[in-house]
Amino acid sequence: MIGLIRVFTAKDNEVLQAHGNLIHKQFEVPVMSRSIPDQPLGIYDDASEELALPKIVELGIQMEQEGCRLLIVSCAADPGVRELRSRVSIPVIGAGSSAALVALSLGEPVGLLGITEGIPPVMKVLLDELIVGYCRPEGVSNTTDLLTEAGRQTALEGARSLVQKGAKAIVFACTGFSTISFADVIRKELQVPVVDIVEAEGLMAANYYKQIISAS
Amino acid sequence: MIGLIRVFTAKDNEVLQAHGNLIHKQFEVPVMSRSIPDQPLGIYDDASEELALPKIVELGIQMEQEGCRLLIVSCAADPGVRELRSRVSIPVIGAGSSAALVALSLGEPVGLLGITEGIPPVMKVLLDELIVGYCRPEGVSNTTDLLTEAGRQTALEGARSLVQKGAKAIVFACTGFSTISFADVIRKELQVPVVDIVEAEGLMAANYYKQIISAS
Repeated sequence: MIGLIRVFTAKDNEVLQAHGNLIHKQFEVPVMSRSIPDQPLGIYDDASEELALPKIVELGIQMEQEGCRLLIVSCAADPGVRELRSRVSIPVIGAGSSAALVALSLGEPVGLLGITEGIPPVMKVLLDELIVGYCRPEGVSNTTDLLTEAGRQTALEGARSLVQKGAKAIVFACTGFSTISFADVIRKELQVPVVDIVEAEGLMAANYYKQIISAS
Repeated sequence: MIGLIRVFTAKDNEVLQAHGNLIHKQFEVPVMSRSIPDQPLGIYDDASEELALPKIVELGIQMEQEGCRLLIVSCAADPGVRELRSRVSIPVIGAGSSAALVALSLGEPVGLLGITEGIPPVMKVLLDELIVGYCRPEGVSNTTDLLTEAGRQTALEGARSLVQKGAKAIVFACTGFSTISFADVIRKELQVPVVDIVEAEGLMAANYYKQIISAS
């Protein structure tokens, strides 16, 4: 079983399972999702990240004890990934680093699409000079805004402007775009590859998980 | 169709198809393999690399013209990858960079197993501080040596010594280990994840190829 950590307190089970379901469907691996307690708004600034870190580490340790063979921290900022790696004996995959690494394999200029103020540092450091721009679609500050037709249209225009700036691929710097399957919209409309951040963490996680299982 | 470039002149069709067959089997994508002309010994020093580069670029351009939608340069040194990216309009995936990036997603110390004198620069730069050691198994200087029981035993001992040095995963720095399915031997014997370099190029290539096809 893969243990997937959501870094906010999910209000219902469907929301909690969203990333795990995408990964299970695409890579045929079993995923158990859990969310950290008492943070309904998740991580949105330094203080909320500091509050979340020990909860992520504690949850990861607990999931290893419950039998998980690999952990995913499903957030673009990779919060707690480094800390968890020193506290558990199983592999830990981060969403932000996975997406950046998949984009790096293409070796082409990329545009990042997010809903936060800036690019998560873990992605910025890895992609570095390949980044042609970052776009936070106007009027979109949380994933609910992406569920409206206006929000989707603005996000698509944002992706289009990144391609016009020279991006050869679009990289999601927020998992919210994965939840609404926005990658397919961009692929069809703009004919460029998209590094979907939940797909990327699933790609890396499933690759390691399958060998762990087949060797044991 | 994915176009896969072998950086030596294959003496028979089975050898030519080896990497493509592994990728086709594991990722269910169509692969067409070609090898560069007049270099039966492939790339083994600076002079032979210089000789090979224009051939790799020419072959890649030709494969794009023949309808390939993505190219793989199936060699740990990523020869010609940078040059090809500026000459074709389709994605170009390198073996060495793909393996290093998959290893980076794990974020743990790794040991590299190769048959050449040193670590290919493209892998060294990416993996950097995570490298605990490089091992060229004693008496193994070409992939044929790996086909003997003695060669396999030496290579397994090499991998074991890297794990003893603190490697949490083994990364192939040569595609020859992939051809003989050596990853499974290490996984079973040493219980550590292995980044098989042909699997890694296939993982990255198939991820992009599938979206190119589904969007068109």
